[in-house]
Amino acid sequence: MALVVQKYGGTSMGSIDRIRNVAKRVAKTYDAGNDMVVVVSAMSGETNKLVALANDICEFPDNREYDVLVASGEQVSIALLSICLKSMGYKAKSYHGWQVPVITDSAFSKARIEEIPDTNMRADLKDGTIVVVAGFQGIDRAGNVTTLGRGGSDTSAVALAAALKADVCEIFTDVDGVYTTDPNICTDARKVDKVSYDEMLELASLGAKVLQIRSVEFAKKYNVDVHVRSSFNDNQGTMVTKEDKEMEAVLVSGIAYDKNETKIAVMNVPDKPGIAAKILSPLSDANISVDMIVQNVSESGHTDFTFTVTKADFKKALAITKETAKEIAAKDVVTDENISKISIVGVGMRSHAGVATKMFQTLAKEGINIQMISTSEIKVSVVIDAKYTELAVRVLHDAFGMSGKDVKGE
Amino acid sequence: MALVVQKYGGTSMGSIDRIRNVAKRVAKTYDAGNDMVVVVSAMSGETNKLVALANDICEFPDNREYDVLVASGEQVSIALLSICLKSMGYKAKSYHGWQVPVITDSAFSKARIEEIPDTNMRADLKDGTIVVVAGFQGIDRAGNVTTLGRGGSDTSAVALAAALKADVCEIFTDVDGVYTTDPNICTDARKVDKVSYDEMLELASLGAKVLQIRSVEFAKKYNVDVHVRSSFNDNQGTMVTKEDKEMEAVLVSGIAYDKNETKIAVMNVPDKPGIAAKILSPLSDANISVDMIVQNVSESGHTDFTFTVTKADFKKALAITKETAKEIAAKDVVTDENISKISIVGVGMRSHAGVATKMFQTLAKEGINIQMISTSEIKVSVVIDAKYTELAVRVLHDAFGMSGKDVKGE
Repeated sequence: MALVVQKYGGTSMGSIDRIRNVAKRVAKTYDAGNDMVVVVSAMSGETNKLVALANDICEFPDNREYDVLVASGEQVSIALLSICLKSMGYKAKSYHGWQVPVITDSAFSKARIEEIPDTNMRADLKDGTIVVVAGFQGIDRAGNVTTLGRGGSDTSAVALAAALKADVCEIFTDVDGVYTTDPNICTDARKVDKVSYDEMLELASLGAKVLQIRSVEFAKKYNVDVHVRSSFNDNQGTMVTKEDKEMEAVLVSGIAYDKNETKIAVMNVPDKPGIAAKILSPLSDANISVDMIVQNVSESGHTDFTFTVTKADFKKALAITKETAKEIAAKDVVTDENISKISIVGVGMRSHAGVATKMFQTLAKEGINIQMISTSEIKVSVVIDAKYTELAVRVLHDAFGMSGKDVKGE
Repeated sequence: MALVVQKYGGTSMGSIDRIRNVAKRVAKTYDAGNDMVVVVSAMSGETNKLVALANDICEFPDNREYDVLVASGEQVSIALLSICLKSMGYKAKSYHGWQVPVITDSAFSKARIEEIPDTNMRADLKDGTIVVVAGFQGIDRAGNVTTLGRGGSDTSAVALAAALKADVCEIFTDVDGVYTTDPNICTDARKVDKVSYDEMLELASLGAKVLQIRSVEFAKKYNVDVHVRSSFNDNQGTMVTKEDKEMEAVLVSGIAYDKNETKIAVMNVPDKPGIAAKILSPLSDANISVDMIVQNVSESGHTDFTFTVTKADFKKALAITKETAKEIAAKDVVTDENISKISIVGVGMRSHAGVATKMFQTLAKEGINIQMISTSEIKVSVVIDAKYTELAVRVLHDAFGMSGKDVKGE
């Protein structure tokens, strides 16, 4: 007998029929003799509807109340799934975040889980009850409802699995697992059987969007095996787990792209110490995350300073940067909203030289100009003209020999 | 400076524009120097939508989970109203039932409020914060979410007013107050300025539907003045308060009708002691409320036993009664689903004879046959053929001189 944590996303919970399917799947695992904790998201579309209501009232809804609002979607889901399981004759009980309790800090809309006492859940599990928990939500130490940010249900599931020392955490979603790249771009993209936490972190943050980044950090920290799989079939998905020898043999395990960034370049900046901080501090003060940063070699005491921000932050970032540019006597601020970031990720890079070179050569052969480069131990990212995105992904996927027969839909 | 509890129903909260109006109204009362607790219902239609989801899954959804489901509607409302108030520059804070806490028993879907500690709310009120509470919901002592039944937000408001010893409890709704009868039937129905708790109890339970019965019981028990008024204008509404001399001068203060009942008659029952209990106990065991009960005078050791139940309970009640009829060797079970109950209510009846007689004469004059009669200290109810409902209400309204100029819409 094992303790299994399963998480079903909004698409899997998207209608009464789909909830019935989820209940059947849960029941099957339970009938096989497992203790079950099920984490669910709001029915697809519901959270967006709630957000739209808040935005109808004002541009910047109060943070605390925003969380109260959006947490209601998961409440509907836990109730409906529990009703369904009970109507099938199973013992089931719904838990709000505060009933578990999932204790978080007080950073509304992006709260971090601090502690999950397991006493309440243990009592129900011992009793043979299927525990149905609202994902995405928690409670801070002052008794306020908090939420974990978009995709937070993944983190809820992994955190619960860690707290309960579950044997496995299964994340059911609308895709079969993690692919070598977007199958919509590369028809021969291959499902990856196993991926390390670090690779998943790079892939997730780069736009693979299968798991919330924070859930992977959590899984890595507490060593939780996370099985990402489809709720619409019984196929094995992708196991996100700790690095092993086998993974190191693979040079590149995934290619990600992100069209959601924009480039801002401050031209002809006097090259003095502290210039980077001067440009970037006002942005972080405004809570804008800067992704890639490049500073050119100084020429005659002047340099160009280029960085990328998300499209959502672009307007605000540009206004702030223009202000700064004036203060530091820069010549100009130049922008490009038509860029794309392409990244290759793989733990194999640690032990293999020449991966970056191969990437650059492959792109050059197609006449694709590289505008910015950024590297880490297990990834290389480049910024290119957005119109070459698909071409770049395809040629890289081919160059690194990632195609395979385990294609989506099989 | 006073402490004011205001309650806004689903229609008043029915859209973002209406929520804005509610916020303006709340702000106005707050700006006049009052401490404010605002109780809100789910946006109109929302609760029905949630109930429909549950019923899509199964006929009898689990009680505990049903409450978790339907309580989510109020959560949306408190968040939206608080967001709105804060965007207007007011201090506001939403409270779920469990955050107040509104402690109830564990009778899911019809929980009774047991206790409302006021410490949390007092702290916020002292701070000048507008306290926004989810109506309809509470928490039992085991930490489960409970709901108070349809219209339960009224009870929440009155109970909060009692717990906080508020100066007044204003129930904002989509009508101007309590009318002498349904203005849709009697165009000259008059708004009543003041009505006693007992009259209101009779009127509410008879279908006036302005206030949940239990809220009036609560108001009576704790002596809370309840001002029922429209959220769409500034008119004075109806004050529900303790009985006074002025009220006694009025013979009949309201006429109610109820088309939601059905009649079941057990014919030719052996007239032995305990027969009534034998017929009624299986019904109460099945949680079916019986309203009017009439037992005819015995003829040759046999009698007819007639009672009414709501349309919703009719099928179940009939099946049970047929079973009982067999056991007690009754001759037959006869039913009538086309009935209507007409009631006249007024504390003045206590000190005036002949009110019932006048009612019967008035109906007789129109050729309306009375099928059942039931009386209490302050009301007389009769069951008639449903097709005469409107006629009966109009002639009685006229006969008791209840018409006036303070007509709805003025």
